[in-house]
Amino acid sequence: MKKLYVIKIGGNIIDNEAKLSAFIKDFAAVDGLKVLVHGGGKLATKLAADLGIEQQMIDGRRITDAATLKIVTMVYAGAINKNAVAQLQANGCNAIGLTGADGNAIKAHKRVSPPNLKGEPGIDYGFVGDVDTVNTGLLKSLLEQNIAVVLAPITHDGNGLLLNTNADTIAQETAKALSSIYDVELIYSFEKSGVLLNAEDDGSVIPSINPTTYSELKDTKVIFAGMIPKLDNAFAAINSGVSKVIIGKAEQLQQLIKGEAGTTILNN
Amino acid sequence: MKKLYVIKIGGNIIDNEAKLSAFIKDFAAVDGLKVLVHGGGKLATKLAADLGIEQQMIDGRRITDAATLKIVTMVYAGAINKNAVAQLQANGCNAIGLTGADGNAIKAHKRVSPPNLKGEPGIDYGFVGDVDTVNTGLLKSLLEQNIAVVLAPITHDGNGLLLNTNADTIAQETAKALSSIYDVELIYSFEKSGVLLNAEDDGSVIPSINPTTYSELKDTKVIFAGMIPKLDNAFAAINSGVSKVIIGKAEQLQQLIKGEAGTTILNN
Repeated sequence: MKKLYVIKIGGNIIDNEAKLSAFIKDFAAVDGLKVLVHGGGKLATKLAADLGIEQQMIDGRRITDAATLKIVTMVYAGAINKNAVAQLQANGCNAIGLTGADGNAIKAHKRVSPPNLKGEPGIDYGFVGDVDTVNTGLLKSLLEQNIAVVLAPITHDGNGLLLNTNADTIAQETAKALSSIYDVELIYSFEKSGVLLNAEDDGSVIPSINPTTYSELKDTKVIFAGMIPKLDNAFAAINSGVSKVIIGKAEQLQQLIKGEAGTTILNN
Repeated sequence: MKKLYVIKIGGNIIDNEAKLSAFIKDFAAVDGLKVLVHGGGKLATKLAADLGIEQQMIDGRRITDAATLKIVTMVYAGAINKNAVAQLQANGCNAIGLTGADGNAIKAHKRVSPPNLKGEPGIDYGFVGDVDTVNTGLLKSLLEQNIAVVLAPITHDGNGLLLNTNADTIAQETAKALSSIYDVELIYSFEKSGVLLNAEDDGSVIPSINPTTYSELKDTKVIFAGMIPKLDNAFAAINSGVSKVIIGKAEQLQQLIKGEAGTTILNN
């Protein structure tokens, strides 16, 4: 099986022009087949504020109402995605930017939250998508032409609705689906050096985590709460055919790929 | 040679939700290989106004400054392109939305205006692109998977710059380039029924125009000035391998394709 890298970059990198530009250069230099999944960053929040569109929050979670959906579609699929593609081209890396609607790459359904314990209706998160299928045939046909695929965190439901979708989930689902064709390594790159023993100390990287050490870390509450969904995603990927998951600093992409930095998620 | 339709829709259709939706349905129903090229419409102008970004005009022509480029990238490549793709998917037509940067589909250079007759520097139109090359290999690989290609009027220069590019020109250049592989019909669909003898009378459609009748129409100033660039584009396409160019009403797409409506541009 050929190797494929699925690499996610977080919002903090996207918001920083110099870091993004350095990352794009490093991504362009990665040898072999590759998929880049980008998050949204603060640009959408800023555009909403500039337009006087209020962000609705319920229980601390952002709701994607119709106005917000328009904004994230413009910012994620337009501004961020197309600039990333143009930068990759400038670095000698042929790339194509897609949302889930393009070529039916990623189909999703609008999230329906279950009723709460009192039987009251669940939270309506608005136009938020949970992934159903990844079109591996389309992605393969592009990758085999040596085109890097750049995925924006927008999917569609097949009935004309675009849906705002978590970029970590898109990376995970894409990595899982493509592991039937390729030897897939999934890399979550962000602003920290990996999973940290001490959130304040970027030097306290845990080199590897397996299911046993993960539950110990959770029990002792060593792991920063924000890392848990990312790690749950990582284990879900590993348990569904992805060879390796690495979590680490975007600036260290080359070392992450070589296994010289970051936290590696192991199956056992 | 297989038949390929390259169909351009103008801004007035894009701005009208009901008309756009009807057009998308008709486009989805077109048999065979197809490319849709969309213009911008008024959404970009509206977003610029909402953000308090002034449109710069020189000699009545809009300048694409850096702020405007960001807006058209978001609106054309994000909002319009992705909604069109999602709507096509909902109508059973697999489609993929691209800018010129995606897969290096359309490469362009930033327009350099020649000096005027007094030797003064030409107008700087800003981030506006003139097309250099169309990547027929990429487009063919998508079309042959029965994926309709939806082109936004944004290109790139290969050095990281996105460029605002006239949608009529994109349609023409794409049609010309693909005529080496396919039997291409180019359709410019807009709000009028075709090229009109009397701009006020939508019933006065000229059924066909050849180079001789075109120069007569221009000499007698019968043709509305705004039609001339479109017709020049049409003749350029016909003279470079495109089989047929038809200009007509977006609502009559099926009849345009059957040759039952609109103005047909002939080689002789």
